[in-house]
Amino acid sequence: MNYKEALEQKIKLINHYLDKLFNSIPDSQAKIIYDAMAYSIFAGGKRLRPVLMLSAFEAVGGEGEIIYPFACAIEMIHTYSLIHDDLPAMDNDDLRRGKPTNHKVYGEGMAILAGDALLNKAYELMIKASLTCSGREALEAMDIIATCAGTEGMIGGQVIDLLSEGRQVDMETLLFIHKNKTAAMIEASLKAGGILGKGTKEEIEALGQLGYCIGMAFQIQDDILDITGSQEKLGKAINSDIKNEKATLVSIVGLEASRKYVEKLTKQGISALEVFGEKAAFLAWLSYYLMTRTY
Amino acid sequence: MNYKEALEQKIKLINHYLDKLFNSIPDSQAKIIYDAMAYSIFAGGKRLRPVLMLSAFEAVGGEGEIIYPFACAIEMIHTYSLIHDDLPAMDNDDLRRGKPTNHKVYGEGMAILAGDALLNKAYELMIKASLTCSGREALEAMDIIATCAGTEGMIGGQVIDLLSEGRQVDMETLLFIHKNKTAAMIEASLKAGGILGKGTKEEIEALGQLGYCIGMAFQIQDDILDITGSQEKLGKAINSDIKNEKATLVSIVGLEASRKYVEKLTKQGISALEVFGEKAAFLAWLSYYLMTRTY
Repeated sequence: MNYKEALEQKIKLINHYLDKLFNSIPDSQAKIIYDAMAYSIFAGGKRLRPVLMLSAFEAVGGEGEIIYPFACAIEMIHTYSLIHDDLPAMDNDDLRRGKPTNHKVYGEGMAILAGDALLNKAYELMIKASLTCSGREALEAMDIIATCAGTEGMIGGQVIDLLSEGRQVDMETLLFIHKNKTAAMIEASLKAGGILGKGTKEEIEALGQLGYCIGMAFQIQDDILDITGSQEKLGKAINSDIKNEKATLVSIVGLEASRKYVEKLTKQGISALEVFGEKAAFLAWLSYYLMTRTY
Repeated sequence: MNYKEALEQKIKLINHYLDKLFNSIPDSQAKIIYDAMAYSIFAGGKRLRPVLMLSAFEAVGGEGEIIYPFACAIEMIHTYSLIHDDLPAMDNDDLRRGKPTNHKVYGEGMAILAGDALLNKAYELMIKASLTCSGREALEAMDIIATCAGTEGMIGGQVIDLLSEGRQVDMETLLFIHKNKTAAMIEASLKAGGILGKGTKEEIEALGQLGYCIGMAFQIQDDILDITGSQEKLGKAINSDIKNEKATLVSIVGLEASRKYVEKLTKQGISALEVFGEKAAFLAWLSYYLMTRTY
């Protein structure tokens, strides 16, 4: 099996667990909330965060099923953040991954609740999984995820992003937004995977470094694709950052310097993996693969 | 110390811990999110849920400090739900506890994020507290809280409430909303307090029954006060349910039958406390006190 096939297999596994989760919901008067949650969960996400978590788990030699509820939870937290980001009071986006955004289908009120419900369900899942596990690693993984998803991580980044709308943004602020809004959860995915797999302190640290680097690279690549990509492949309007007067690295330092920065970050991330030797070969490949993605 | 003084002391203790929490926030570019969170946390809430949690903890003979982060967390989850409920896409309320609602002060986008941040911070707090605790009771308490706050609890109730707006609602639906939107978190507060205090299975069950009963009574009393109360005491507009064409128990069975139902539920709840003997005297008093409240 080559790396590309390994990636596809991981995505399939994660989708299988997400399917199982949404197929086993209790009969409820409030069924529509599950529909709204599932709509965004199954709207064609790349499953990057759960794939990274699973790969980190495997790289440290992790065993057992505990990784799957955590992988689903990280995808749920990511999806809640997208639903709320797309709301009229935030980015006001009509299209996400080629489909109408959650509030366009279910209305604003239900979309707010669907986001809330995904965030809460993510913790429900992780807590229930932690109850089946004798060690402390599940609690430690939750701690990392909760911190990176919160005011000192993803939400903090979103706050500054919201305040920066329509304003001239300097490099420092832009990097703060990317680091917190995007890289924090990618870092959390990798570290939590390593912790759940009972990796060494040195390994977890290396995974954290990789996470920061490819998280930043991923977001800058997103900014680049907003200019050079195709609407069809991306599933969303291109040039949206220009239209929304949104500062990106590209608008500050230009396309070529941005590309070089993505490359530098990716190499830096991969070099942090040295401590693993061969065991992180897939993670190294995936980091390169992300750098060259066109969607 | 009489009961009223004991109640005030508990509220003081909880406010002290909440103060400490918001006074020790890290220096951050995203400081405004903490302001928005604190605005609603310190907007004059009755601290009912944390007081109940603390009282249940004491009733089962609980010891130690673990109860305080959990008590703060339950108040944060309650506060997040109020901020999101008040949004224009939901109840569209301008006033809460006599003050402008969160989105009126911070804008809609920031209010959505402040709600998200409070929910996430609640889990951060509980997870960090769980890491300091050797037993499983913290995880079990989190499990109850997460379930009652989610789609099979508070969010489920809010979904049906949202869908019922401007519609004729039957008794069954109304009781579903009250049970899930209000009673679930009150039940969770009491049960989690009992679990954290290492109560017996029998005690936890009794606390759950009390929670359901006084949770329902509390919400119906709210509906009654919306008609008979004073705007000054309540800190919000009265007759809002009529204006918003919101079905309440009062609109279905009338004022007198609603009052009788509150009384019946309260007595039923208190009788569940028999298993405790004298140890639950404060909880019994508090249940009566809530029944006769005017704000």
